[in-house]
Amino acid sequence: MSDHPTIALTRELIARPSVTPEDAGCQQLIGERLSALGFNLESMVFEDTTNLWARRDSQAGGLFCFAGHTDVVPAGDLSKWQTPPFTPTDIDGVLYGRGAADMKGSLAAMVVATERFIAQYPEHAGSISFLITSDEEGPFINGTTRVIDTLEARNEKITWCIVGEPSSTKYCGDIIKNGRRGSLTGDLVVEGIQGHVAYPHLARNPVHQAALALHELAQTQWDQGNDYFPPTSFQISNIHAGTGAGNVIPGVLNVQFNLRFSTETTDQALIERITQLLDSHELEYKIDWTFNGQPFLTDSGSLVEAVQSAVTRVVGNAPVLSTAGGTSDGRFIAPTGAQVIELGPVNASIHKVNEHVSHDDLIVLTDMYEQTLIELLVTRA
Amino acid sequence: MSDHPTIALTRELIARPSVTPEDAGCQQLIGERLSALGFNLESMVFEDTTNLWARRDSQAGGLFCFAGHTDVVPAGDLSKWQTPPFTPTDIDGVLYGRGAADMKGSLAAMVVATERFIAQYPEHAGSISFLITSDEEGPFINGTTRVIDTLEARNEKITWCIVGEPSSTKYCGDIIKNGRRGSLTGDLVVEGIQGHVAYPHLARNPVHQAALALHELAQTQWDQGNDYFPPTSFQISNIHAGTGAGNVIPGVLNVQFNLRFSTETTDQALIERITQLLDSHELEYKIDWTFNGQPFLTDSGSLVEAVQSAVTRVVGNAPVLSTAGGTSDGRFIAPTGAQVIELGPVNASIHKVNEHVSHDDLIVLTDMYEQTLIELLVTRA
Ligand SMILES: [Zn+2]
Ligand SMILES: [Zn+2]
Repeated sequence: MSDHPTIALTRELIARPSVTPEDAGCQQLIGERLSALGFNLESMVFEDTTNLWARRDSQAGGLFCFAGHTDVVPAGDLSKWQTPPFTPTDIDGVLYGRGAADMKGSLAAMVVATERFIAQYPEHAGSISFLITSDEEGPFINGTTRVIDTLEARNEKITWCIVGEPSSTKYCGDIIKNGRRGSLTGDLVVEGIQGHVAYPHLARNPVHQAALALHELAQTQWDQGNDYFPPTSFQISNIHAGTGAGNVIPGVLNVQFNLRFSTETTDQALIERITQLLDSHELEYKIDWTFNGQPFLTDSGSLVEAVQSAVTRVVGNAPVLSTAGGTSDGRFIAPTGAQVIELGPVNASIHKVNEHVSHDDLIVLTDMYEQTLIELLVTRA
Repeated sequence: MSDHPTIALTRELIARPSVTPEDAGCQQLIGERLSALGFNLESMVFEDTTNLWARRDSQAGGLFCFAGHTDVVPAGDLSKWQTPPFTPTDIDGVLYGRGAADMKGSLAAMVVATERFIAQYPEHAGSISFLITSDEEGPFINGTTRVIDTLEARNEKITWCIVGEPSSTKYCGDIIKNGRRGSLTGDLVVEGIQGHVAYPHLARNPVHQAALALHELAQTQWDQGNDYFPPTSFQISNIHAGTGAGNVIPGVLNVQFNLRFSTETTDQALIERITQLLDSHELEYKIDWTFNGQPFLTDSGSLVEAVQSAVTRVVGNAPVLSTAGGTSDGRFIAPTGAQVIELGPVNASIHKVNEHVSHDDLIVLTDMYEQTLIELLVTRA
């Protein structure tokens, strides 16, 4: 059994069953390690969510931040796990357990990288901080967004932030995320008049009324994307009408759709275009919008350069920059003006049964994080 | 309490709780009355369904048939009935009970009209028959259609048929049905590829693919109808796609639709057009068809004239001819070459709680049926 400190700490974190919004003592464990390094700990509890803001100031310079979450998604079907999900188990150089890849391994690598960095460069420039929440996989109401609100209120600004989300696909560091698309959900209700199929003149079929509008929405070119983002995409995720009876014209149509959008547009611009399109079809409708975050992008700057350099140094290849995939807590941090990059292990098993991370990923990730600190707070400082 | 024999017999039938496919002794009661008139009774039991074919031959001439059903739909929410559904109850000249209007009152009126007619014209021309089933409200597999098959097999042909379905809307005889539209149901399954909304290039959204085809189906002019039928109508009755999750692109779309079609087209022609339209959209789909009956029409002839004359004589106004509304067992009888008319009481309460028929409707309906027999088997014979 490998005794690399990152692997050991990952095991300790997996053993704490911190299903959202539970932290299950993970932040205390991390806090003790950081406290020993001279970090000042600030626990921010909002409702059911536990957050940790830890900061260590050294010299003048920027504030670096490691951001992540201790919570994990539920284990799912226990009968399909080959090992107990909250019992860290090593098999052939791979560590199994819920949260291994998303993202307790990253948290452990951040702690160990920081320990090693401070031991080697106690007089580094700038400051180092940790922003850790127990509500990333859940409703993300009382987590990172509220910590950021608190920091903003006292004008405490993060300069560079690495989020530990598992960004990699084939090997650790092959892909880093330098932004994310925005996400906007619409819940559309089209009102018709219910009736019997034998008497269509007494009814108004909302499916018939809305079909062309839905087609046009599905066909719309929202933008062309740009160097960093694919074109904005629209997807109907749910549609439902009808009582189940074959002879009843439905009285109402429910449609849920989601847009993942680039920095070429905004939620307000999309809402306006969709409203205009629906209005042009003279539908009787109402729509509820759920806004899940603006797109963000860190297209250049010292953080991108430092991470690219660190990854290249450790694995021999430069990482690919990507903005693909779902949302992350980076969307709450980037709007403050921080440069944000996501770098973490291979994500193939996340949110699935038998989640795992390779020992190799944990070791090279620790090196990449440490090397990034060296680049930003020593070499370039 | 009125002692008109039609009202009295209707009460006796309502007291027999003949929910589909049960007959509950109704046909025995009717059979005894017909037997006393010299009818030959033939009970045809197919699976769970009881059918009665009763026939009385007098002189040469056509075969008149009264067609109907003894079965009733379930009572529904008993707490909403003001009187027990299977206890015939008279209130202010109205008889309440399940089946009062659909169609035990019509059966009683047929029996009483026949009794009176034969008493007055024992040597009438032609023959009289009754075709009664206990499976009209149900799957209509073992009812009228199988009796007709039996008659056809022995080349026994009905010339004129009155179906006792409640055809009237404001007063008994305001509307008679001289045909019905055909009915065809399609269950369409469009196959896509399920995926995550953040990775649309890995998925194929069947809702997006099918929306334009559904719009075109909804907009299609299938025909112009004709003097007796409104244009064929298409209605989507049910549509469903999606797992409920907002971030999943559905893998399959289910659509159920129904066509009510005129004599200007056929089920085969409709299936061909819809298949062509779907094929033109290059959908990956399959479709199951349920054919509920061809349209039928009795646009002229001695039966229409006799019923028009009889109704006009009894209520002072000529009836309106209509082909509107749902299907009836007339669809099984008309294809044999029989002239078919539906004439029955006001249908406002059928299939609902507190179903009822007015004493007046039962009395004038008896007169109309008797007068039709006189027209066909005496006056015009
Ligand atoms: Zn995560
Ligand atoms: Zn009926």
